[in-house]
Amino acid sequence: MGKPKDGEDENMAAWLLGVNTLKIQPFKLPSLGPQDVRVRMKAVGICGSDVHYLKTMRCAHFVVKEPMVIGHECAGIVEEVGSEVKSVVPGDRVALEPGISCWRCDLCKEGRYNLCPDMKFFATPPVHGSLANQVVHPADLCFKLPDDVSLEEGAMCEPLSVGVHACRRANTGPETNVLVMGAGPIGLVTLLAARAFGAPRIVIVDVDDYRLSVAKDLGADEIVKVSTNLQDVDQEVVLIHQAMGTGVDVTFDCAGFDKTMSTALSATRPGGKVCLVGMGHNEMTVPLTPAAAREVDVIGVFRYKNTWPLCIEFLRSGKIDVKPLITHRFGFSQKEVEEAFETSARGSTAIKVMFNL
Amino acid sequence: MGKPKDGEDENMAAWLLGVNTLKIQPFKLPSLGPQDVRVRMKAVGICGSDVHYLKTMRCAHFVVKEPMVIGHECAGIVEEVGSEVKSVVPGDRVALEPGISCWRCDLCKEGRYNLCPDMKFFATPPVHGSLANQVVHPADLCFKLPDDVSLEEGAMCEPLSVGVHACRRANTGPETNVLVMGAGPIGLVTLLAARAFGAPRIVIVDVDDYRLSVAKDLGADEIVKVSTNLQDVDQEVVLIHQAMGTGVDVTFDCAGFDKTMSTALSATRPGGKVCLVGMGHNEMTVPLTPAAAREVDVIGVFRYKNTWPLCIEFLRSGKIDVKPLITHRFGFSQKEVEEAFETSARGSTAIKVMFNL
Amino acid sequence: MGKPKDGEDENMAAWLLGVNTLKIQPFKLPSLGPQDVRVRMKAVGICGSDVHYLKTMRCAHFVVKEPMVIGHECAGIVEEVGSEVKSVVPGDRVALEPGISCWRCDLCKEGRYNLCPDMKFFATPPVHGSLANQVVHPADLCFKLPDDVSLEEGAMCEPLSVGVHACRRANTGPETNVLVMGAGPIGLVTLLAARAFGAPRIVIVDVDDYRLSVAKDLGADEIVKVSTNLQDVDQEVVLIHQAMGTGVDVTFDCAGFDKTMSTALSATRPGGKVCLVGMGHNEMTVPLTPAAAREVDVIGVFRYKNTWPLCIEFLRSGKIDVKPLITHRFGFSQKEVEEAFETSARGSTAIKVMFNL
Amino acid sequence: MGKPKDGEDENMAAWLLGVNTLKIQPFKLPSLGPQDVRVRMKAVGICGSDVHYLKTMRCAHFVVKEPMVIGHECAGIVEEVGSEVKSVVPGDRVALEPGISCWRCDLCKEGRYNLCPDMKFFATPPVHGSLANQVVHPADLCFKLPDDVSLEEGAMCEPLSVGVHACRRANTGPETNVLVMGAGPIGLVTLLAARAFGAPRIVIVDVDDYRLSVAKDLGADEIVKVSTNLQDVDQEVVLIHQAMGTGVDVTFDCAGFDKTMSTALSATRPGGKVCLVGMGHNEMTVPLTPAAAREVDVIGVFRYKNTWPLCIEFLRSGKIDVKPLITHRFGFSQKEVEEAFETSARGSTAIKVMFNL
Repeated sequence: MGKPKDGEDENMAAWLLGVNTLKIQPFKLPSLGPQDVRVRMKAVGICGSDVHYLKTMRCAHFVVKEPMVIGHECAGIVEEVGSEVKSVVPGDRVALEPGISCWRCDLCKEGRYNLCPDMKFFATPPVHGSLANQVVHPADLCFKLPDDVSLEEGAMCEPLSVGVHACRRANTGPETNVLVMGAGPIGLVTLLAARAFGAPRIVIVDVDDYRLSVAKDLGADEIVKVSTNLQDVDQEVVLIHQAMGTGVDVTFDCAGFDKTMSTALSATRPGGKVCLVGMGHNEMTVPLTPAAAREVDVIGVFRYKNTWPLCIEFLRSGKIDVKPLITHRFGFSQKEVEEAFETSARGSTAIKVMFNL
Repeated sequence: MGKPKDGEDENMAAWLLGVNTLKIQPFKLPSLGPQDVRVRMKAVGICGSDVHYLKTMRCAHFVVKEPMVIGHECAGIVEEVGSEVKSVVPGDRVALEPGISCWRCDLCKEGRYNLCPDMKFFATPPVHGSLANQVVHPADLCFKLPDDVSLEEGAMCEPLSVGVHACRRANTGPETNVLVMGAGPIGLVTLLAARAFGAPRIVIVDVDDYRLSVAKDLGADEIVKVSTNLQDVDQEVVLIHQAMGTGVDVTFDCAGFDKTMSTALSATRPGGKVCLVGMGHNEMTVPLTPAAAREVDVIGVFRYKNTWPLCIEFLRSGKIDVKPLITHRFGFSQKEVEEAFETSARGSTAIKVMFNL
Repeated sequence: MGKPKDGEDENMAAWLLGVNTLKIQPFKLPSLGPQDVRVRMKAVGICGSDVHYLKTMRCAHFVVKEPMVIGHECAGIVEEVGSEVKSVVPGDRVALEPGISCWRCDLCKEGRYNLCPDMKFFATPPVHGSLANQVVHPADLCFKLPDDVSLEEGAMCEPLSVGVHACRRANTGPETNVLVMGAGPIGLVTLLAARAFGAPRIVIVDVDDYRLSVAKDLGADEIVKVSTNLQDVDQEVVLIHQAMGTGVDVTFDCAGFDKTMSTALSATRPGGKVCLVGMGHNEMTVPLTPAAAREVDVIGVFRYKNTWPLCIEFLRSGKIDVKPLITHRFGFSQKEVEEAFETSARGSTAIKVMFNL
Repeated sequence: MGKPKDGEDENMAAWLLGVNTLKIQPFKLPSLGPQDVRVRMKAVGICGSDVHYLKTMRCAHFVVKEPMVIGHECAGIVEEVGSEVKSVVPGDRVALEPGISCWRCDLCKEGRYNLCPDMKFFATPPVHGSLANQVVHPADLCFKLPDDVSLEEGAMCEPLSVGVHACRRANTGPETNVLVMGAGPIGLVTLLAARAFGAPRIVIVDVDDYRLSVAKDLGADEIVKVSTNLQDVDQEVVLIHQAMGTGVDVTFDCAGFDKTMSTALSATRPGGKVCLVGMGHNEMTVPLTPAAAREVDVIGVFRYKNTWPLCIEFLRSGKIDVKPLITHRFGFSQKEVEEAFETSARGSTAIKVMFNL
């Protein structure tokens, strides 16, 4: 470990300073509390929300008003532990859950801590993120990786958690035939999670041939290419039903547009569920009433809770392989950080862009 | 019982023959199966869907293509029982559950028989209804009324079942603060049901002063008068929150319009539920994504299942009093049938219009 | 507030020093953390476990090895709040939830904090209790009482929470016909809670006429007197079924003996639940297999979680009246403390013995 | 189909006539109702309950009072269908669910038809079983087998359903570490089912080396050999915990003896579940209270419901391979029937004994 005190002094981080302006600058670590650990970051992925912040200084209702360190999909190596920490020791390789909840509000106490109104979450303003050489974080949010799970896979626990949480909320299991709307990064992790939860048949839908081919390689049973034209919903539902060959029990809308949600609501069987994961449109024009009249419930998801141990088990056992999702890798220099975000923003063949620090 | 054979010959029913055309005409009873009973109808209520059929010959996706006996909210006295019937005897006063499901499909076997695709339901085309002197119906759908529950109250089990089923699906209990959008007949039975399920605080919203005053009389804690203007949603949500004084755990949208659903989605607390009961608009333009991102689930309801015993218990125990909802009564003559439907269609001060046969 | 520093110096508490030895002695308060409050105790009830500790220096697998302040059913007035406390202010009347969980283990994070292995709970060794002039406690475990709920009622939230948690775990509602085995303090609070959750019919069983008469006064629909003879189970089940008049959906065994549990398992309908609340016998000889073969599940309960707000609402609204349970009151002198525990230990007509400090 | 009338005349079945007395004798088929099918039996397995009836003329509380055809694990080929049957056609290979429920009682309507008090179940007196050349059965209980699932595998859907239903009731999934007590036929199908539901780690316990080796071959992660001595429970729980390496979330007791249930209750983590599947002892002496005080729930199971489609999917997809369980095969002659039952009764190396008709 050498000289942690020195280490802290030279800690560098990627600061979001304004629209399209990211700079690597020093970041002073907070002091280490008795339940905290100091982690040297080794792998940090770029999320769509990071790109959104960079392009617009906002995401959903969160607005960046002051310079903020970006990044929240991360894993690293423990360098120092607080006086009361027992769960990890220096040298442990850990994946970090990014959100610190209050544990005093009703939602935390009921086990829905992801909805905590006082959540402090990496790179959600005004809280700093984790694209940095080092971070200080509560030990109970740092999950030890087994030997056969890499640090990059550790960082992938964060996006994978979104799929896992969605599958849990939609009660996905070996009797759940699944439709996934959208084959972007979130659609793909949802596909992988649904498979790991035992879904016997999964159909995935997108407008893009390349994304669909990736989904097929990752194990989708059938792919359905669709248009962006709202008037095609009815005939595309027919195609989806043909591809599924049986009732659609749960649809994950990983895009969140009028069209994807209309398709989801229409394609799902009576008594099934539509889980809204993507956030394309804010206000939606969708046939909600006919779906409700078939008792198709619309299930919302926000981030995740209690997902890291399960994600790590899925990765360890090989039930899920996230490595094919990592399409690009960059180092942690000013130039590479800029390139990495440009690559992620272009989308197309970039699924997950990863920093190796 | 007198002469049942003769009784069958003279059986009269209210036939829907075309738009705005109802005629009392003879209706030949089907033969009595071993598990069936023949019931002399005594109380039949008019439902909004009955009026809708009369005005348009359709309701949702159901279309009346041939003359059909109308009516489905009913109670009567058993006159004859099939050879294998043990649950009731002639002379018993019974409330009738209107839907006969197949019990062979997956949904029936899983206990969601209300979603059975082969359901045969009173006055849902092409199945005849129950506004008739007599009907033949399966004995297991005829529920005996205790002495202190009237036949009119028995007929009210049908609309009340909608509220009960909604409360069950939304998991309403003594910890559920409830918002009801709409103080029409369905809003009012939902209010009554939510109270009976233990909801500690109920706020109800409508555009009509008279309806709100009825809701207050029926036990709403607070009433909020709103406009029909979509742009008022935000400020009305503030008023609703003030009236509730605490978080809204479950909202029942008993209207089902863009505005009511937008209000419902915005007013409900993170982790809460919006139950869509009313069916005003088919396609809706609503802020679904922000609600989903607070894990506000949208729960659909279709009719009901297993509700009669609970409704009867609520009526028997006095936990629910439906009598104030019955605002108008008519006899079963051609003239009165026409008047009754006109009264119901006018709405305003008519909540429930009841036939006494 | 006067002189808090002095106040702390003179703080007195009831120390358990050995078998049958309780002494009022000074108790130094811990320092006030930023999220803590200092509360002047006003009402403290005696629980069966307190008596058990006094008589044997142990309860279940917990053993008192060093002097310990006793007491955990309590309410008082806030005198000082930590720097970050926002939920209460000095002068607020509050009821105290006695257990401080770790919020770092899996069970806490999943919302089952009552099962936290690192729980620190008033008067569970080696943690001190609350029969003292003052205690320091986390603010989020101090629940403000409305004006019309007394401090004694506030202290009763603790035993009432046991009944509320049992009702929740057994999913008690307006369709649940309830059997309660045992009309001691826990049986009675379970009766009150089951009624407040909407149970339409409640039968309670005991060996003692007086306790049964109290249960009847508190609202039991029927009482059944039974023997202590195991061979009477079959005929007593017949009596219970007659008293219930319908199937027993949920049985709460608030005694926990071979006989009560055998009766519970036999009396409950197929698909029902038996909730084991009492802890009379450790090892039990019971007909578990025939019950399991009717899918009667046995539900365990340990203390409670998230119950104080609901208890306070039940008390505020009048759905539950706990005042009749408080049969004896004592002041906080050495002599009265000894008398109070003797009174509680004698049982018989003493239901809840309360200190007014 | 040839001559169904003749076929019916010559229909032979295995009749249980008295203790240890099975005779192949003619069995007159009931008439074919509109919703029924006539199936030529091709594969019938022997269940422990069949052997129990043969040895004692009873099983649990069911007593054979009149000659009864035995057998209920079966599959065959449809030969004739009733006038209203649409789900299968002659020539279809089908697996038969053995129980016909009433669909009129509360339990049926709530979706718990396995608890129907009027259930008519193959070879549960006084209902005849299916070890016969042909049976008549409702079409909705005859499930078509895909081409790549054999008739023997079809017959195995019945015992497999016990494991599947137990996994469902205990909510088994990819986060459930499973302990199985007993490696007999039921323990083995529960092991297979738990794996198919995603259980990441499964430990199985038995007294017999051979059975444990079979369990290991079928995919148990660890096996633990135990004694029949009650006093060894504590040390065996230690061994089990070592073998599991993490908390036991769900234990399936597939034996049902004092010792297995004591081990199950002690080994399961706080908040976990013990599912009682086996029925060794009727009355049990077990440490129920300490388990309940850790909120370890005891879940009962009776047969199964809605399991055939899932079993067939598990077999089709290869998630479950039941073929290794079929250790012995016999033809349908008087001599072979006797030999087959003797083989099954001897146990030891016989797991599943199958008739090929």
